[in-house]
Amino acid sequence: MGPADFKDFESTPRPSKEEYERRASELRVELVNAQFDLQHSDRTVLILVAGDDREGTHELIDLLHEWLDARRLRTEVFLEKTDEEQRHPAFWRYWRALPRRGQIGILLGAWSYEAIEGRLYGTSSEEDFERLSRHACNFERTLAVDGATVVKFWIHTPRKVLEKRQRKSAKSRYGRRSAERNQRFLDFHEKLVQLGEQYVARTEAPHAPWTVVSGKDPRGRDLLAAETLLRALQAGAGAAPTPTPMPTPEPADGAPTLAELDLGAELPSKPYEKRLAAAQERLSDLTIEASERGLSSVLVFEGPDAAGKGGAIRRMTRAMAAPVYGVVPIGAPSDEEQRHHYLWRFWKQLGRAGRMTIFDRSWYGRVLVERVEGFATEAQWRRAYAEIVEFEELLVESGAPLLKFWLHIDREEQLRRFEAREKTPYKKYKIGREDYRNRARWDDYVEAADEMFARTHRPHAPWHVVAAQDKRHARVVVIETVCAALAAKLAAD
Amino acid sequence: MGPADFKDFESTPRPSKEEYERRASELRVELVNAQFDLQHSDRTVLILVAGDDREGTHELIDLLHEWLDARRLRTEVFLEKTDEEQRHPAFWRYWRALPRRGQIGILLGAWSYEAIEGRLYGTSSEEDFERLSRHACNFERTLAVDGATVVKFWIHTPRKVLEKRQRKSAKSRYGRRSAERNQRFLDFHEKLVQLGEQYVARTEAPHAPWTVVSGKDPRGRDLLAAETLLRALQAGAGAAPTPTPMPTPEPADGAPTLAELDLGAELPSKPYEKRLAAAQERLSDLTIEASERGLSSVLVFEGPDAAGKGGAIRRMTRAMAAPVYGVVPIGAPSDEEQRHHYLWRFWKQLGRAGRMTIFDRSWYGRVLVERVEGFATEAQWRRAYAEIVEFEELLVESGAPLLKFWLHIDREEQLRRFEAREKTPYKKYKIGREDYRNRARWDDYVEAADEMFARTHRPHAPWHVVAAQDKRHARVVVIETVCAALAAKLAAD
Repeated sequence: MGPADFKDFESTPRPSKEEYERRASELRVELVNAQFDLQHSDRTVLILVAGDDREGTHELIDLLHEWLDARRLRTEVFLEKTDEEQRHPAFWRYWRALPRRGQIGILLGAWSYEAIEGRLYGTSSEEDFERLSRHACNFERTLAVDGATVVKFWIHTPRKVLEKRQRKSAKSRYGRRSAERNQRFLDFHEKLVQLGEQYVARTEAPHAPWTVVSGKDPRGRDLLAAETLLRALQAGAGAAPTPTPMPTPEPADGAPTLAELDLGAELPSKPYEKRLAAAQERLSDLTIEASERGLSSVLVFEGPDAAGKGGAIRRMTRAMAAPVYGVVPIGAPSDEEQRHHYLWRFWKQLGRAGRMTIFDRSWYGRVLVERVEGFATEAQWRRAYAEIVEFEELLVESGAPLLKFWLHIDREEQLRRFEAREKTPYKKYKIGREDYRNRARWDDYVEAADEMFARTHRPHAPWHVVAAQDKRHARVVVIETVCAALAAKLAAD
Repeated sequence: MGPADFKDFESTPRPSKEEYERRASELRVELVNAQFDLQHSDRTVLILVAGDDREGTHELIDLLHEWLDARRLRTEVFLEKTDEEQRHPAFWRYWRALPRRGQIGILLGAWSYEAIEGRLYGTSSEEDFERLSRHACNFERTLAVDGATVVKFWIHTPRKVLEKRQRKSAKSRYGRRSAERNQRFLDFHEKLVQLGEQYVARTEAPHAPWTVVSGKDPRGRDLLAAETLLRALQAGAGAAPTPTPMPTPEPADGAPTLAELDLGAELPSKPYEKRLAAAQERLSDLTIEASERGLSSVLVFEGPDAAGKGGAIRRMTRAMAAPVYGVVPIGAPSDEEQRHHYLWRFWKQLGRAGRMTIFDRSWYGRVLVERVEGFATEAQWRRAYAEIVEFEELLVESGAPLLKFWLHIDREEQLRRFEAREKTPYKKYKIGREDYRNRARWDDYVEAADEMFARTHRPHAPWHVVAAQDKRHARVVVIETVCAALAAKLAAD
């Protein structure tokens, strides 16, 4: 799509003061009513505010606070990143800030600013712009498919109008410092309009439409924005067409399958002790170096119950200093987590920069247990493949090595281990009725696992399927694989 | 209290391997059972791990992960602060990390590290140490009174033993880099032991006891720590004596009362427009400067319904750029918030450095609506005064100006405004049955407000009681007061 032309949006009606008051009064009632209905629904509303008219964006946010019930709004300003934000994947700060179902979130700048800023100041490339725009489309689509109403405003005001305002600004309600900031903004205005036009065209979508609002006449601006928002709120209540999810990723070449795994791999006790000690020592060194250099990493462990995930993780963590890693066990989502997109809780768990975050079970639950046990609808788990690939792309682009392990055992071995657990008093708690129930669906889990490997195996986020019939073999393979990936990354950086 | 002497704790029994295995097996069952009971209770468990034996602290955390059900644990490592953490009040990062009721949180370093670190490296004064120790005592007491079980371990190992370990470390499971880190730690060992002794003595309390664990013999260390934790979990289940809350602050001299307020203060329309415009312009400049200099501030608005809090806030926010402030409306707590100490949600809402955070109602709800309507027990709201004073002290110590406004009207004016709201279609939603119910308890609210002023009015966190019968007067007074405080702070820094 070619760039939009903001000139097309410059001529807005200029309502009189009386006209404005009359319509404002009606709109406010309807907005508050729509917000009330929203509150009891499963939907989230995201309002993105951006523009080439700095004061216009601020005034629109003021207006929304005044016209909506501010007690049920959450506004976040995302312009320059803090150090901590810079050291996390793109979109990390937006995911964390998403309002829960039933609420409205207003975001100033955010992902639109992130894509445009670097181009505006010449610190990023055309490819970065493309990449961030693509992620923005995927982000908005992911949320819209999950029931979010996404409304995007670009406040556009011609340079001449802004200049005239600047000249008057000594008399305005804003002070000298604000005028200085406007001036700085104004110096970049032409380029900002051009980038805005590109960005708006690039990220326009029926499920997340842009409204370019002329900032020339504040009354006209307010009414247009409020009416657009009201229509979106009302359409979101049922009339809007369901957006199409991102296309399901095609099965990847070279993805592993469980059938081709040699479960017989073994490692006798003597060579095990030796290789384990060597691998642990190396892991200790590598993770300290990664920590000093601010390199984060993410590990995922999946596999049947009792496959030895916990044991493998402990063999790693024992060799690492507590400050360099975090283990995140994943169980059923909490009430609060259920009021968000299912990926929200994983985004929130990404550890600070320089740390290894180890997920003991993960976002893959969506296409494994939730699929097999029917906790997710088919539409939900089917679209999750693409959502997961997108999520992992953002992780990998931030520089974090991502390693995904599937530890595998056969049904008989699982039963032996369950029985052994029941006989070990301090392991009894690890086994419950649902474990036996899951066993009954063994073949369904295998099918789900194979499809998951096929659809989410990626060069930079490969699956490592490890035979865990022999625990020693599995533990050593896992640690050696992690070491190799860390060493390669540290050498390359 | 004089410093503890860690030498007294150096002789720990050295269980044989068989003895260890036997007791470990029993302990693990009991720990998991106690954790299971905890899960269905209202209690939180906080385990603080610190020490002069770096590897010992890490190994203890590994052990807890192995012996407890790791799916219901949350471990956080708090050593050096990130930039963002540094720019927030002390204890901000710990409050945010508190586990919810029913869960266990393990914290490495944390507030003990914060007090000791500066002394160890010579970057802070004896007063800082005293101040942080005092806050630590208050923090632990606040949580313990709220039903938390606080368990603190200091792993102490004599220097000679650590040196011997270092010599062997080439052969250990830890690598070269880890040995380097240990060495750095070892260079400060003597001073660290000395500071540890001071800190432990300074922060010892029956409701948050220290256990000094010798790290000489790892098996002895593990058993002692696990047994201590188990006893604490079991005692927390009912046998432990209730800790005494912090003493209720005495009524302060110079605290305002509602009776002495002149509600007749008025500001006619003409001078209003002029003073408002001047104050807004000044506010705009000051907040931009504060933002550039990283100065955060916190504003609190309380007062009867319809006193004009929202209107006053909007007169401010209209003059400010959206990036420099955040408005936090406070309503009933969510499920998740109810599973934490009542102050948790306010800590979480403190905005990023350099911003003004405006609370529309606040933590004072505890001693106002929750007191009057009986949502909090008398013991809960009585102890809240001291907790609030402590919270605000931490805010103020971080350099943030804190302004607390009570906007006041009389009963008749409130009724007039309620009736006007009912007639304004877009304001109807602002009024509900509970508003009329609250009116019935007018005198109780006045009594609660007066006691609140008396007990929480502080030189650096004063209450500003503003006559709001005339909205214009209230708005101008509020903005001018904020400007004066910001200007004074910016001039002083």
